Amino acid sequence: MEILALVLGLIGFGVAIAIYFKIKAEPVGNEVMREISEAIHAGAMAFLNREYRILGIFIGVVFLLILVSMGYQTALAFVGGALCSMFCGYVGMEAATRANVRTSEAARSSGQAKALWISYNGGAVMGLSVASLGLVGVGIAYAFFGNDPTTSRYINGFAMGASSIALFARVGGGIYTKAADVGADLVGKVEAGIPEDDPRNPGVIADNVGDCVGDTAGMGADIFESYVGSIIATIAIAAAASPALLAQLGSGDNIQAMAMLLPLVLAMIGLIFSLCGIFSMKYLKDRDPAEALRSTTLIAAGLFLAASFLVILTMGIKGGVFLAIVAGTFGGVAIGLVTEYYTAGGPVRRIALASKTGPATNIITGLAVGLESCAVPVLIICAAILVANFCAGLYGIGIAAVGMLATVGVTMTVDGYGPIADNAGGITEMAGLGPQVREITDGLDALGNTTAAMGKGFAIGSAALTALALFSAYSTTVGLEAINLINPLTVVGLLIGGILPFFVGALTMTSVGRAAGQMVEEIRRQFRDIPGLLEGREGVKPEPEKCVDISAKAALKEMILPGMTAVVSPVLVGFILGKEALGGMLAGATLAGVLLALMMANGGGAWDNAKKYIEKGSLAGEKKGSDAHKAAVVGDTVGDPFKDTSGPAMNILIKLMSVIALVIAPLLI
Amino acid sequence: MEILALVLGLIGFGVAIAIYFKIKAEPVGNEVMREISEAIHAGAMAFLNREYRILGIFIGVVFLLILVSMGYQTALAFVGGALCSMFCGYVGMEAATRANVRTSEAARSSGQAKALWISYNGGAVMGLSVASLGLVGVGIAYAFFGNDPTTSRYINGFAMGASSIALFARVGGGIYTKAADVGADLVGKVEAGIPEDDPRNPGVIADNVGDCVGDTAGMGADIFESYVGSIIATIAIAAAASPALLAQLGSGDNIQAMAMLLPLVLAMIGLIFSLCGIFSMKYLKDRDPAEALRSTTLIAAGLFLAASFLVILTMGIKGGVFLAIVAGTFGGVAIGLVTEYYTAGGPVRRIALASKTGPATNIITGLAVGLESCAVPVLIICAAILVANFCAGLYGIGIAAVGMLATVGVTMTVDGYGPIADNAGGITEMAGLGPQVREITDGLDALGNTTAAMGKGFAIGSAALTALALFSAYSTTVGLEAINLINPLTVVGLLIGGILPFFVGALTMTSVGRAAGQMVEEIRRQFRDIPGLLEGREGVKPEPEKCVDISAKAALKEMILPGMTAVVSPVLVGFILGKEALGGMLAGATLAGVLLALMMANGGGAWDNAKKYIEKGSLAGEKKGSDAHKAAVVGDTVGDPFKDTSGPAMNILIKLMSVIALVIAPLLI
Repeated sequence: MEILALVLGLIGFGVAIAIYFKIKAEPVGNEVMREISEAIHAGAMAFLNREYRILGIFIGVVFLLILVSMGYQTALAFVGGALCSMFCGYVGMEAATRANVRTSEAARSSGQAKALWISYNGGAVMGLSVASLGLVGVGIAYAFFGNDPTTSRYINGFAMGASSIALFARVGGGIYTKAADVGADLVGKVEAGIPEDDPRNPGVIADNVGDCVGDTAGMGADIFESYVGSIIATIAIAAAASPALLAQLGSGDNIQAMAMLLPLVLAMIGLIFSLCGIFSMKYLKDRDPAEALRSTTLIAAGLFLAASFLVILTMGIKGGVFLAIVAGTFGGVAIGLVTEYYTAGGPVRRIALASKTGPATNIITGLAVGLESCAVPVLIICAAILVANFCAGLYGIGIAAVGMLATVGVTMTVDGYGPIADNAGGITEMAGLGPQVREITDGLDALGNTTAAMGKGFAIGSAALTALALFSAYSTTVGLEAINLINPLTVVGLLIGGILPFFVGALTMTSVGRAAGQMVEEIRRQFRDIPGLLEGREGVKPEPEKCVDISAKAALKEMILPGMTAVVSPVLVGFILGKEALGGMLAGATLAGVLLALMMANGGGAWDNAKKYIEKGSLAGEKKGSDAHKAAVVGDTVGDPFKDTSGPAMNILIKLMSVIALVIAPLLI
Repeated sequence: MEILALVLGLIGFGVAIAIYFKIKAEPVGNEVMREISEAIHAGAMAFLNREYRILGIFIGVVFLLILVSMGYQTALAFVGGALCSMFCGYVGMEAATRANVRTSEAARSSGQAKALWISYNGGAVMGLSVASLGLVGVGIAYAFFGNDPTTSRYINGFAMGASSIALFARVGGGIYTKAADVGADLVGKVEAGIPEDDPRNPGVIADNVGDCVGDTAGMGADIFESYVGSIIATIAIAAAASPALLAQLGSGDNIQAMAMLLPLVLAMIGLIFSLCGIFSMKYLKDRDPAEALRSTTLIAAGLFLAASFLVILTMGIKGGVFLAIVAGTFGGVAIGLVTEYYTAGGPVRRIALASKTGPATNIITGLAVGLESCAVPVLIICAAILVANFCAGLYGIGIAAVGMLATVGVTMTVDGYGPIADNAGGITEMAGLGPQVREITDGLDALGNTTAAMGKGFAIGSAALTALALFSAYSTTVGLEAINLINPLTVVGLLIGGILPFFVGALTMTSVGRAAGQMVEEIRRQFRDIPGLLEGREGVKPEPEKCVDISAKAALKEMILPGMTAVVSPVLVGFILGKEALGGMLAGATLAGVLLALMMANGGGAWDNAKKYIEKGSLAGEKKGSDAHKAAVVGDTVGDPFKDTSGPAMNILIKLMSVIALVIAPLLI
């Protein structure tokens, strides 16, 4: 079966590559467009290369540490996970930076349907890479170690590799994109009064590179990690399952083997129907883009659920497990809908209204919205846990996470579509393609903002469930009967765990602030020192590569400390305070991390859209440039690092800590 | 011994009343000052009366519910705790609103030393009331039920009464004060450009009333609750202690009785030396005010520690218990120092510097400072837990909290000094007493801001330790061997618990925003409709009573929902999901609550002082009215509800939930 996973994964990846070349064959547009897109492409790939060089050192050091402490199997799996994640990021970025300009050109020469098709398929390269390479990697690891519950723990190294890369990619990408965005906006929009994506602004290329670096590569690594982590956690739970738990899953003699295999099988089914969903875009592209995107996801999810029901019965597993999958799938959808409400519904109007009394009330209201928005998604996660646990015990929690993530091929495609549409809008503006083209790309971009907000909700929900599954896997693997909160050591672990998301949030916010400050200085300098630039004199060009360099340097430097904090602290707590305290730490970090992630993502999204709400003229008496709009711009700027740097870092932080605990578990017994 | 506690408590309260009359006999100043102070006094007492009428209904309903479910003993204790807390608030407010104007007058006619003496002793009325009435109440309850471990649980009702009042007082007071403050500042300072506390501003009286309502009555109820809660939690832990735990405490036959008595004895010793500390102000008042305040606290703490060491040995309790007390006392001091660093040190300069690039970077930096500031205080709490637990098990955690809070008479005096000095500054400005007097009151006010920030840190630290002590008391009382995080029900409880602080934070922030909006409308209306008001024409006066009414109505209306959420949710979780899930809920709420409380208190304090830093001209090239200063005012306004409404609400939320769990514990067994 794992050979089938391998084959299927390779086929999926082949399709991704085929789509990539099909996109690359599309026309790239005029000379200006080619030039801009080359700058974005070069900036993005250069950053990735520099980042990967630093990560290479990190991987080497950790490989040696694992080799010495845990043996070569885990160490090799670790390298495999890291390489798969990096390769995904590379392919996805390559595709995104090709698809962006071709989307612009399609909007100009062919219209909306073609533009939608290109941007969607650009995202599909990332989506399919994530799903396929995840399957290939886990498949290979499973083929070597999975058939035996005593060796299956080596697979955990694969998840740790994926997680480590994800944290650095997400944090580095988040700092890169927001330093550029905040810096370019502060000088361009606020001080100089020129529009967004204006070609005179030296920070605009860096801003567009940042969209790819943060939203494509960062998001891809995040989802790849959740996907792989949920599968591996479920295998680990099944491998360490008690006879009582196994009896809850089915009655056959081979029930443990089946339970270990099921997550892999579900991932395979998910990939097959993700492909169906992605191909259906061919027939949906002429419809309303929002409806088309939603339909591709629903087709994949519906077919996946039906097929998984049949497969579970065939494998001799009880129907209760299917209910756990349903709980996970519906939980993911429900969290996305709540996110949509908070970032597009009533709360956005509340923030817009509060902007009338100035930036302070805008910020207070936005923070209140963010704080409030945690309640319902966490209750949904609680409901999913209760259902999954009732139906299939701890195994149910793992399998619910797998159910949420199995159709990642298509959900990640939709996520990957966003930054491409965003970039296409930027290129259209910079190349001056005119209002008609801009209208198409603006429409696709606006849709991308909605999918991005929902995607963030989904990423948090899946991260929470994956972290809890990894936590369950840790506790079963480490052989604890109880992680007892009455024990003060566990409480100390809980408290220390709770600090970490707040601390990493502080570090990343500070990094963005510092890097944005440097960016502001540089853009101001160019406006001051390059004669004719701000006036838009013919032939005068900014020096965008200097801004790209500032973002890249800052991102690479500032990702180290938060990354190392996340890697080192569970190891320290595990060895100094013991395995029960480490369990408490994981619980504390997961709780604080999920709450902060939701608050930051939803608050940030709501601020962003409150600004757009005023710009569209929906707030009576206010428009672009009015005092209320200026107040809303302040909120949007604060929300930027919330939603794109610090918030997303939380997802990875909680998974990474859990997976490290799982990997070192054998040393703590 | 409990009779001695009663007598000592009554003596302490007698001293408080004597101080009150001594202050009242001081000269009140000229006609204008008398008029202003009467307006503040009338507004504050009117609010308290309205608040207490609503709380009367609440107490009646809860009394009946407890009577039916738990019996008359707990119900009576509940009413006793509530009445004691309310009485404290009443006496403290009465004293504060008398001492404020007399401090002004003393600054005018006698100079700084007399002004310091009056404001300090005004605070001492509140400080001594809290310590004495707490001792009287717990003493009476202990006399009836405390000598027998099977009836001592009735005392828990007393803590629940104190907690319930505290939540409403803190939330209501916080909304009152910040609605007035934010509203008065937005129109007065930002729009009309008149200075703070200008008599033309109709919101200024409400602002000064708010300082009393929030910082005196609210803070008093908060600390009263921690004080009573820590004593009662320790009694409960001792009453339910296992033989193994008792053996850790001492070897005598009567060790359980001694362990139950010790928290009461420590409170008595603390009160005695608090009186010494307070009286020492008589000889310290001519020194530097900051040094004088610090000395009174250190004298009390030093003598307390020495005496408690002797008492513990006399009672046949092991020396390890003393180390737990030391851990608590030093923990409280250390958290205060960290708070001082974050609200007066390097982070303040960082925020001031970030104001140069506008309000957005000011806010981002302030939020980062707030997030960062959680780490060290929580690590200090962890260290105190580890030491206390190592020395005396769960009992050590309770006794550490008692150690932190025993000298509450003097620490609360210093807390109570702040709003009086603040009010005195306002009265000096409004009555136009001239720059020399203003210089004295400004100096005392600035010192009050520092003590307020440190007091907040202390309040959070003591709340965290008290909540953990109550949590330990809950788990021993409910007879759980383990609150097991591997059980998904516990995890669900943990997640639900974590939501609550975020939700209550959102509610209170929204309330302040809404009430401040109404205040802005009213002040704008008065400036528009009252001819000559803004120009300061002779004889034209604002209508401050309308602003007072807006604040009062908003506070009373908006305190209901957060209050009920905190009261109802642990009951629901306990009865629906069971006692283990309720344990998880308490842990989750405590973790999230402590983190948010620290973030909000420190972030808010740092924003406030960053603004003052720029106003003092410490940031090169910037001064009052410059763009950087305007950006810093935005940060200060956001920080106001953080540090004075939502943040302090967290302290009470976590204690109240824990104490409710402890009270309903017998029903869950």
